[in-house]
Parts: sequence; structure tokens; C-alpha cells
Amino acid sequence: MKAQGRETRTIWLEADGSAVGIVDQTRLPYEFVTLRLTDVAEAAHAIKSMQVRGAPLIGATAAYGMALAMNGDASDAALAAAGKMLLATRPTAVNLRWAVEEMRRHLGALPPSRRVAAAYERAAAICDEDVSINSMIVEHGIAPIRAAWRKKGERGTVDILTHCNAGWLATVDWGTALAPVYRAQQLGIPVHVWVDETRPRNQGASLTAWELREQGVPHTVIADNAGGHLMRQGRVDLCFVGTDRTTAAGDVANKIGTYLKALAARDNNVPFYVAAPSPSIDWSLDSGDAIPIEERDPREVTEIAGRLTDGTVARVQVTPDGSPAANPAFDVTPARLVTGIVTERGIAPASREGLASLFPEFREAARA
Amino acid sequence: MKAQGRETRTIWLEADGSAVGIVDQTRLPYEFVTLRLTDVAEAAHAIKSMQVRGAPLIGATAAYGMALAMNGDASDAALAAAGKMLLATRPTAVNLRWAVEEMRRHLGALPPSRRVAAAYERAAAICDEDVSINSMIVEHGIAPIRAAWRKKGERGTVDILTHCNAGWLATVDWGTALAPVYRAQQLGIPVHVWVDETRPRNQGASLTAWELREQGVPHTVIADNAGGHLMRQGRVDLCFVGTDRTTAAGDVANKIGTYLKALAARDNNVPFYVAAPSPSIDWSLDSGDAIPIEERDPREVTEIAGRLTDGTVARVQVTPDGSPAANPAFDVTPARLVTGIVTERGIAPASREGLASLFPEFREAARA
Repeated sequence: MKAQGRETRTIWLEADGSAVGIVDQTRLPYEFVTLRLTDVAEAAHAIKSMQVRGAPLIGATAAYGMALAMNGDASDAALAAAGKMLLATRPTAVNLRWAVEEMRRHLGALPPSRRVAAAYERAAAICDEDVSINSMIVEHGIAPIRAAWRKKGERGTVDILTHCNAGWLATVDWGTALAPVYRAQQLGIPVHVWVDETRPRNQGASLTAWELREQGVPHTVIADNAGGHLMRQGRVDLCFVGTDRTTAAGDVANKIGTYLKALAARDNNVPFYVAAPSPSIDWSLDSGDAIPIEERDPREVTEIAGRLTDGTVARVQVTPDGSPAANPAFDVTPARLVTGIVTERGIAPASREGLASLFPEFREAARA
Repeated sequence: MKAQGRETRTIWLEADGSAVGIVDQTRLPYEFVTLRLTDVAEAAHAIKSMQVRGAPLIGATAAYGMALAMNGDASDAALAAAGKMLLATRPTAVNLRWAVEEMRRHLGALPPSRRVAAAYERAAAICDEDVSINSMIVEHGIAPIRAAWRKKGERGTVDILTHCNAGWLATVDWGTALAPVYRAQQLGIPVHVWVDETRPRNQGASLTAWELREQGVPHTVIADNAGGHLMRQGRVDLCFVGTDRTTAAGDVANKIGTYLKALAARDNNVPFYVAAPSPSIDWSLDSGDAIPIEERDPREVTEIAGRLTDGTVARVQVTPDGSPAANPAFDVTPARLVTGIVTERGIAPASREGLASLFPEFREAARA
């Protein structure tokens, strides 16, 4: 997608054929800065510090992290250690585990001498697969937007509320929840996005608003508190969010606060869709209660980063000294509140039967 | 209540007998600064700029604003103009209208020569009535906290989630939703408050956290997004919020985001109580949809105030240049989501019949 007018991905192999380039997402929206990752520790740091974030991009970065590890040391021990280091970065997004296990399985079957080339090749393929999956999510996810447009008599705009960032910055390219929005715009359906700012890290205000602005999509940033009110007023036609991990039964872990919007959507008959590329689906779990929820640094609540009037970026404290804070980073939206799960194979009802009908090869895993 | 260890109210008559003192709440939590209001324009500015806020305190300030107006010019024209100026400050809190109408009615019946003394007297009485009402809300509001404590087998803490600030800073003294919390602490019931930061103006993070800290009440600041997750985890025993205007049928206008917490409380069987002193009840309205919702400056969303590491207070921008924002300041929680409305006369079911049973003198007004 476009960043500063140029087509780019969020992660790429550098020209030297070994280092990996990323967009440093902690610097957005005020600076577009790229970074070179040269070893697995830097890849792990990029994930942990959220220089890269978004479940699909975390998976892609982990895959390249395994390649960087092999580039330094292609032994079995190094393969195991790299996987362990990467898995320890963030607990909730299942794409991380998926990518690490995929790389371990693929590389473990090869002799060390063949692992470096194979690792870069498989990591690049995982990135391309992400783009390919998202392009299919576009095709299926456009249907609810078309339906909303028809329901409005093709007048005004289709108003879509999104939470956090499930745009191209959360993936290798295109995005998940925002991808159908971009396609709608290409097709001439007038769309407008309500952008939840998404405290505490403000991925909505800083990333979603930035990428929508770069693509020229009309949008309005709102406090996370405002979405329910807008739905009560009939000013939201549908909700579209991403997911860090969706269970085989359709429970959806996503950025903290998603559950509140799903409740409001249900209370106001607003369709609530989740864009879930299959690597975000954890076929080993049924109940969302079993998903580990990351507890992050309370300073993300007590301090907020932004730009001062002199243009410098600074952190300000918003709480009194001595007032503690808590910072759960994700919540679980029960399947009963989800209208549909948009995958690369179509839109499934949020249920075991619904997901298994699209992914029959996982039917047994889901039952186990 | 205590501020920096000293008992104080949020508004008072200065020693000269004419100026009115207030705590400048825009300076909290980092500076405890008081201001002298000397004319009605300053009182109107204090309300509009949120140096004072909270429905009961807005009413009290409006009453003193009328007294300051009379002190300058006690004519009928000045009485009308002062009312008009004050009513134009903020639309949602009905206490403002209630206080202005009460002062106009009371003073209009007197000759101008007697209005100054009568205005100060009535304004002081309105302040004392607020304190008295809140002390009765304490007596009734303690019951749900006791019930939660018993339900937990008197183990651990009673965990209460609150949104925005309905503590003593929102009133003349004691507070509404937080008043029973303070009493519980006095009675030896261990309480802990989950403090929604309450974007965009962060009244939770800056005011509620500050006053709980000053009173020594254990509390934890959370992003507004977190409350639903905590309820799903069974970590919230009850919700307690204030109101800017409650209709005769029990629909509750309160700070934007309240509705989302009420939905989550209902979904998790968490009791949801609203503390509503009777001047916050609009007996002329049944449906909350008729309550005017204030739309505030979008810069409250795009810029956040806080303290830099050097101790100075600054505003930082959190959105990209060119991304617009919207800022509805209140939402309406339908009566069906409210467990009970705690008034100075007891806890009423959130319904016309429930409220009318406690306030039979308004029965006809509610029907009209």
C-alpha cells in the first residue's frame, strides 16, 4: 500500500539478501522510519517493542527472525533457541506460534547446510501467502459493505467502525479488516471509517488514521468511548475488526475494547465482522477463555506519547503520582456476538461448524 | 473532603462575602490551584472551560453565578441576562437549568433591593442542599456495596468500577457515585476502585484517581477499553456511575462510554448503579433520546494534556495532521440496563414507576 505516496510493504528482504527491513511503527504517525534487522534478537525486539505489531505481521517477522537466526548459525540448537526467543516475545497472537512452528517443521527436516536458503525462501513465501490471503479476504469482505450500501439505498456513505489497526500496517500488505474498505473505495462505494483511537497505545489514532489518510479514505478519529453512542444514533453501518487469535469455536481475541464494541453492535443490530486469516485461527482451542491475555506495562496507561507543538515527540504522564494502573492488552469477544468471520475461503458463521465447513482439514484438530 | 490533607469543598464564598472560590479542576492532578470568581462571566467561563464540572457542581456554580450577577446589577434585565449566559455554557447537565430556574424564580419574586443578599443566601443553600443530598445518597448507596461484600463471603475486596468522575470534585462535597465508596472505607469494608481513565478529557485518570489517592482508597487506573474484559474475568463486583441528566423514565445520560460499561455489566450479571441526586432528574423527559448531547472541541480527542518529565504540563497531539476527529461528550444508557438509581430518598428501579414512587410530587410532571 501507499506510504508517503510510494508503494511499500511493512517487511521486506534488504538488497543484501540477508538483512530484513521493517517500518518502525512506534514512530508513526509523525515519522516514517525504516529499520534493518540483522539477527534474531533484533527481530524479537522488534516484535516485543511493537516496532512491528498486528498478528499477521508478527507472524511474518517471526518467520524472518528464524531466517536471520539460521543465517548466523544453522544448527539444531540455534533453530530451537531462535524459536524459543521469538515465542517468548508476545503471548496472544497465535500467528507467532504458527509461523515459528511452520519454520521449525520446515527447517528441522533439512540438513543445516540447506537451512539458510530454505529459511529465507519459506519466510518470503509466508509473507507472500499473507498478501495472498488478504487479497482473498478482500473479495469476501466486500460483501457486507456492498450489502450495507444497498441497504442505505446507495445514498450517503457506508460508515464502518474499526478498533485498533487491522490495516496493511498489521499485515505484510493490504490488511485484514481494512482491506475490504480499500477495495470498496476502489469500486466507487463511498466509505467513511470511524477510527477508535484504541487506548492505551493509540494504534487507531496513530496507525489506522495515518494509513487511511495516506490512501485518501475519509475517516474520523473518536475516543474509544464514543462508538456505542454512534451506534445508538444509527451512524454506524457495520463494524469490522481484526483478530490476534480466534478459536475453532469462533471466540475472538482482539485488542482490548473490542468486546465492548461487539456488545454495542449487538444491542443496535449493527453487523459485527471479524477478518481472520486462517493463521490467526487456533484450531487447538474452543473457548476464548483459554487464550492467554498479554498484560503489558502499566506505563502505557499512565503515559501517552504524542507530538509537542515544537514538533518533537514526547511522553506525558496523565495520572497522579502514586496511582497504579493495569494494562490488559486484549479481550475476548464471544462467538455469539460475531456476525461473521471473514477468512480467505469465505465468510463463516462464528461457530465450530461454521469454521470447520470452510476448513474441513482442521475438523479433527478442532474436535481434539 | 480532603485535598492535600485539608478538608475543603469544591466551591465556597470568599472571606470578602462577594467573590466565589473554586478549585481549578483543569490543573489537577498535578497542581491544586484555587480561583476567585468575581462576576457572572467568570462563572460562565469556569463552567464552559470545565474549571468546574460534574452536574451537581455545575448547578452550584450556576447558582453562585447568578449571585455574582446580582452583586453587579440586581435589575430584572440583569437577572434574565445572567440566566441566559449561564444556560448557554453547557447543554447536557440538567442541574444547570435546575439551578438557574430556581434562582430566577426565587429572585424574580423579590424587589431588586433585596436580591443580592437573597441570591447569596439561596446559592449557599443550594450548595448545602447538595452536600445534604449526597450524604443521603451515601446512606442508600452503601447497601449494594454491603451486598457485594456479603456475596463475596467478606473476603478480598469489593471491586467497584466507575467511569468519569462522580466524586466530591463533581459536587460541592462528598460526591455521588464515589460517596458510598468513601463510606464503605470508613465502615471497614475493603474497597478497590477500577478507575476508567475516561477519554477524551481523562477525568478518571486525572480527577477520580487523584481524589481516591487523597482519601487513601485503593484504586487502579485502566483504559476505558478494559472494563468489559475485567467483568468477564469476574474482577468487578459492581459498577457505580453518576449522571448529568436522568429522565423520568430512568434513561441515564452520563459521560461518553457509560453505555458501553452498562452493556458489559448486563452481559456479565454485574450490578450497575447510577447515583442521581434529584436535581439531576429531568422530570420533563421520558426518553433519553431527547437529551441534548454536547459535542465538544475535536482537539480534546486529537490532543492530550499531561506532565512532561521536566514537570511542566503540556499538550501532545496523538493523531496525524489532517485526520479529523469527533467528540460527543455524553451518551445515554437506557433504563433497561440500569440495576438501580440511587437518590437521596432511596434506590429506585430505573423506570417511571420506580422514580415516581420515591418522588410522588413529580408524578404529574413526569406524565405531562
